[in-house]
Amino acid sequence: MPAKPFPELSESQTSDLKESLLQWTLANGLVMYPPNFQDFSANNAPITLFPTPLPKSSFQNAQDVQKLFNELYINLILKEKSWLIDILRKLSKFDADFTGKLFEVYEKAIEQSPNKKLIQPLSLGLFRSDYMVHDTTNEIKQIEFNTVSVSFGGLSTKVGELHTYLNKSGYYDSDYSYQYYDDEEIPISNSINELAQGLADANYYYNDETKSTKTVVLIVVQPGERNCFDQRHIEYALLKNHGIKTYRVTLEDVEAKTTVNDSKLYIKATMDEVSVVYYRSGYAPSDYEVNPEKTWAARLFLEKSKAIKSPSVLTQLSGAKKIQQILTKEEIIKQFLPDISETDLEKILSTFVAIYPLDDTPEGQTAKKLALEQPEKFVLKPQREGGGNNIYKENIPGFLKNIDEKEWGAYILMELIEPPKHKNKIIRNNDIYNEDIISELGIFGTILFNEDSGKILTNNNAGWLLRSKFSSSNEGGVAAGFGCVDNIYLYE
Amino acid sequence: MPAKPFPELSESQTSDLKESLLQWTLANGLVMYPPNFQDFSANNAPITLFPTPLPKSSFQNAQDVQKLFNELYINLILKEKSWLIDILRKLSKFDADFTGKLFEVYEKAIEQSPNKKLIQPLSLGLFRSDYMVHDTTNEIKQIEFNTVSVSFGGLSTKVGELHTYLNKSGYYDSDYSYQYYDDEEIPISNSINELAQGLADANYYYNDETKSTKTVVLIVVQPGERNCFDQRHIEYALLKNHGIKTYRVTLEDVEAKTTVNDSKLYIKATMDEVSVVYYRSGYAPSDYEVNPEKTWAARLFLEKSKAIKSPSVLTQLSGAKKIQQILTKEEIIKQFLPDISETDLEKILSTFVAIYPLDDTPEGQTAKKLALEQPEKFVLKPQREGGGNNIYKENIPGFLKNIDEKEWGAYILMELIEPPKHKNKIIRNNDIYNEDIISELGIFGTILFNEDSGKILTNNNAGWLLRSKFSSSNEGGVAAGFGCVDNIYLYE
Ligand SMILES: Nc1ncnc2c1ncn2[C@@H]1O[C@H](COP(=O)(O)OP(=O)(O)OP(=O)(O)O)[C@@H](O)[C@H]1O
Ligand SMILES: Nc1ncnc2c1ncn2[C@@H]1O[C@H](COP(=O)(O)OP(=O)(O)OP(=O)(O)O)[C@@H](O)[C@H]1O
Ligand SMILES: [Mg+2]
Ligand SMILES: [Mg+2]
Ligand SMILES: [Mg+2]
Ligand SMILES: [Mg+2]
Repeated sequence: MPAKPFPELSESQTSDLKESLLQWTLANGLVMYPPNFQDFSANNAPITLFPTPLPKSSFQNAQDVQKLFNELYINLILKEKSWLIDILRKLSKFDADFTGKLFEVYEKAIEQSPNKKLIQPLSLGLFRSDYMVHDTTNEIKQIEFNTVSVSFGGLSTKVGELHTYLNKSGYYDSDYSYQYYDDEEIPISNSINELAQGLADANYYYNDETKSTKTVVLIVVQPGERNCFDQRHIEYALLKNHGIKTYRVTLEDVEAKTTVNDSKLYIKATMDEVSVVYYRSGYAPSDYEVNPEKTWAARLFLEKSKAIKSPSVLTQLSGAKKIQQILTKEEIIKQFLPDISETDLEKILSTFVAIYPLDDTPEGQTAKKLALEQPEKFVLKPQREGGGNNIYKENIPGFLKNIDEKEWGAYILMELIEPPKHKNKIIRNNDIYNEDIISELGIFGTILFNEDSGKILTNNNAGWLLRSKFSSSNEGGVAAGFGCVDNIYLYE
Repeated sequence: MPAKPFPELSESQTSDLKESLLQWTLANGLVMYPPNFQDFSANNAPITLFPTPLPKSSFQNAQDVQKLFNELYINLILKEKSWLIDILRKLSKFDADFTGKLFEVYEKAIEQSPNKKLIQPLSLGLFRSDYMVHDTTNEIKQIEFNTVSVSFGGLSTKVGELHTYLNKSGYYDSDYSYQYYDDEEIPISNSINELAQGLADANYYYNDETKSTKTVVLIVVQPGERNCFDQRHIEYALLKNHGIKTYRVTLEDVEAKTTVNDSKLYIKATMDEVSVVYYRSGYAPSDYEVNPEKTWAARLFLEKSKAIKSPSVLTQLSGAKKIQQILTKEEIIKQFLPDISETDLEKILSTFVAIYPLDDTPEGQTAKKLALEQPEKFVLKPQREGGGNNIYKENIPGFLKNIDEKEWGAYILMELIEPPKHKNKIIRNNDIYNEDIISELGIFGTILFNEDSGKILTNNNAGWLLRSKFSSSNEGGVAAGFGCVDNIYLYE
C-alpha cells in the first residue's frame, strides 16, 4: 500500500489545527528558548504539522542494525585500540586545534593517571545513527554515526505525542473529526525514557551493580543553551523513573562547581558524588573558544575522574568522519565484528554509500578526481560535529583549490543520498511553510562497556528522531534554525 | 509538631532553584500567556517557590465537607426550586443587567422548551469551595462556593509536581541535597484527572450510561484567554484517559460554529454531537459586553439544547453570594440536607463566618450599623464572580453612602477572616518577591444530578488548589495579576 497523502485541510481547519498545535507544544514542553531569550519565556520548537511517511521496512532495518553499530564503534576501542589511536594521531595533525586537542586530553589523562591507566574503565555511549532513505530503493543510507551529545531524544518523544494528539483529536481529517492515521502508523519514540535508562545503567554499574540514588549525573551543557528543554525531559525521566538527580554545569564552571577526592568527582555545593558525566557540550571548537585554557583543563579534569563519561574522549573521537569512511569496508567490519552473521553483515553494508579519503592512496587519487570533476554528486566533510561545516556539490572544487593539497586528507568525500521529497508543512513560531521537505531518521542507541575487560554490559536501542528540512537547504540542524523535529508515519 | 520553617537558601542556591524552577514550568506546561501575547510563546505562571504550610486537620476538614457542600448547593435546585427562584427573582431586580439577564435566560429556556420543560434534566456541577484558615483556631472558614468556571485545577496539579520535583532534587536543602519535605507532606492535587473524570461522567450519562467517544465536550472560553493552559491540561486528560474530544468556542462564535438538530447540539464543521457544554466563560458581565445580543442569545441557545451544561444557568445562579449568606443558617442547612448527621452538620457550620444581608430585616438593620460603624471587620460583596468586585474595610461606608439605600440589599456583608501570614516567596516572570503571603484553599468537587428525578448520579471530591497573595493585597486573583498558584505543605 502506498502512503496516504498528507491531510488536505482548508484554511480554517489549518488555523484550528495551528492553535491547538501551538498550545499543545507550550503545555507539554515541546519548546525551545528563542534567540536572546529571557529565562521565563519559551516558544514552540520548530516542528512539522504532520508526521512524514517512512516505509516500515526502512524503519525496521534502521532499528535492526543499531545494536550492531553500537558494538562496531566501541569495538574500535575494545579490540583495536592501537589501530584507532594511530588514525586519531594522524587526524590530530591535520586538525591540531580541535581533534588534536581532544587527543591530547586523552593522552594526558592516561599519562597523569595512576599506573598510566584510566581509573574508570567503564564508558557509556549514547549514540545516534543518522540515515536518509534512498528515494528509488527505499534503502536506508547512513549519513553519520554520532558518538557525542546526540540531541532531540527529548523533543522527539514530544512531537510523537503531539502528532498523536492531533490525530486522535480529528485535526487531520478534512471532512469529519476521524482519526486519519491508525495508532500503529504513528508510533511514539520512547527516547526520553530509554536515554534516561542508559544513564541509569551507568549509575548502576558505577555503584557496583546497585541501584543507588545517592550518586548523581553531571550534565555538561553549553552556556545559554536554547535547546535545554530537550535535555530537561531526560533529566526529569531520570529522576522520576530512577530517583537519580542531575546537575548542569558549563565546561567553564567545572572547576568552580566540582571537586575531586580520591579520584571521585563531587558537586562542591552539596558533596553529591557524580557517577556519570553526560556531555551535551564539548563536541565543537566553539565550546572551548571563550576560555580555552579553562575549558580544556575542565575536560581533562573530568576525564581523569572516576565518573563514567558519556562519552569518554576516545569514544567521542571514534565518531570521526574519517573513521566512518574507513568503516564502510567489508573487511574492516568483519574485523571489528568477527561474529557477525552473513545477514547482519549485508544489512550493515547496505546502509553505506561510497565515502572516499582524499589522500595519496589509489582510492584517494580517484576521489580527488571525482571531487573536482563530478562535485554535484558529493558532499565534502571535515572532522567536525554540530552542523554547518560541510561543503556541498559545486562549492567543493573551489574550496579544495583554496587550501593546500596536503590538507585534503583531513576531509572525506561522501556520495550524496537522494531522499524523497515530501509535501509536509513546517511551523516555526507562528509561520507555516509549505516548501518540499526531506527527512533524516536518527536511531538512538545506548551501550555501556568496559575498556579494560572488553566486556559489553548493556547494548540497547533507544528510540528515534525524525528531523526534516526544506529540500532546498543543504544542512538540517534544528537548533541552528535550518530544520525541524518531525515524527514518522509508517506505511508498508 | 509545628511546621518546619521555609527553606533558607543562600543567594546562589536561590538562583539555582530559580533556573530549575523556571525551566520546569516551561517544560511541563505550568505556564500562562503574558498580556498582549503571541500564540507561540508562553511564560511561567506566577507561583510560590515553596509549598505553604497548612494544618493537616484543616485540610482534612475541607476535604470532608466537600461532598456535603456539593449536595447542599444542588439541593437548592432539587428540593426547593421555587424558593430558589423567588430569591433569584428578587436578586434580578437589584442586578438587572447581569443576574437579571441570566435569570431571563433560565426563564426563556423553559418557556421555549417543549412542554415547558428543559430537554436535558441532567446537570453537571464542577464546583470549588474556597477557604481560609483562621489564624488562631486553625479552623477553615469558607470564603465562597463557586459554581461556575472554577479555574486552576490544571495548574494546581502542575505546581504540586513542580514542588515535588524541587524537593526531590534537593533544591530545598540548604546544606546538602536532601529532601526537605517528606513525600506525604507535599501531596499533589489530582484535579486534572478528577475534573476530566467529572466531564467524562456527564458524557457517560448523556449517552445512556455507555462510554461513548463519539460525543464531544464543548468548552465555552473567553476570547484571548491567557489561562488557556490550565484548561488544556483538563482537555488532554479527557482525551487521554477517556478518549473524549473537546472543542473550544467563544460565546460570540457559538452561533457560527454550532448547530442544533432535534435539540441535539452539534459542531458544524465536523457534525460531532456535543454531550457537555463546559463554561470557562459567561460568569461575569464583561463576558457579554462586546456583543450582548449575540452572546446572551448564545447562552440561551446552549441552555435549550440537549447537551448537559456545566453549569446550567440555575446551577450557576445558585452560587450567588446572597445564597451563600442564606445558607449560613443552621435551620436552612437542615432543611436542604435533611439526612445530615450531627457531626457533619457541625463540620459544615464550623466553616462559616458571619454573613449578613443589608436589607430591612432586623438582621439587616444590625448589619447596616456594623457596616458603617465597624467596617474594618468586614468585606462587602455584590452578586459577582471573577474577582475585583468587593469593597473592603474602611471603603465600605463611603461606598454605601454613595448608592441609594434601596440598592444595599444587593450586597452581603461578610466578616473578614484573618488567615496566618507566611514567609513564602512568589515568583512572577523572573522576579522573586519576599513579602508576607496569605493563602486560600479551594477544594474541587464534581456532582452530576437530575433536576427532574432529584437523583444524584455522582458526587466526588476532585482535588484542590492553594492560591496565595501578598498579605497586603485584598484580592487574590491569579490571572488578574494579584495572586499566584501555590501548593500545600501538610503538618500535624
Ligand atoms: N551523504 C549525504 N547525502 C545527503 N545529505 C547529506 C549527506 N551527508 C550530510 N548530509 C546533510 O548534511 C547534514 C549535516 O551533515 P552531518 O550530519 O554529517 O554533519 P555534522 O556536522 O556531523 O552535523 P550534526 O552532528 O549536527 O548532525 C545532514 O544532516 C544532512 O542533511
Ligand atoms: N471573608 C473574607 N475574609 C478575608 N478575605 C476575603 C473574604 N472574602 C473574600 N476575601 C478575599 O477577597 C477575594 C475575592 O473574594 P470572592 O472570592 O468572594 O470574590 P469573587 O468575585 O467571587 O472572586 P473569584 O470568583 O474570582 O474567586 C478572596 O479570594 C479573598 O482573598
Ligand atoms: Mg548529522
Ligand atoms: Mg554529527
Ligand atoms: Mg473567590
Ligand atoms: Mg467566586
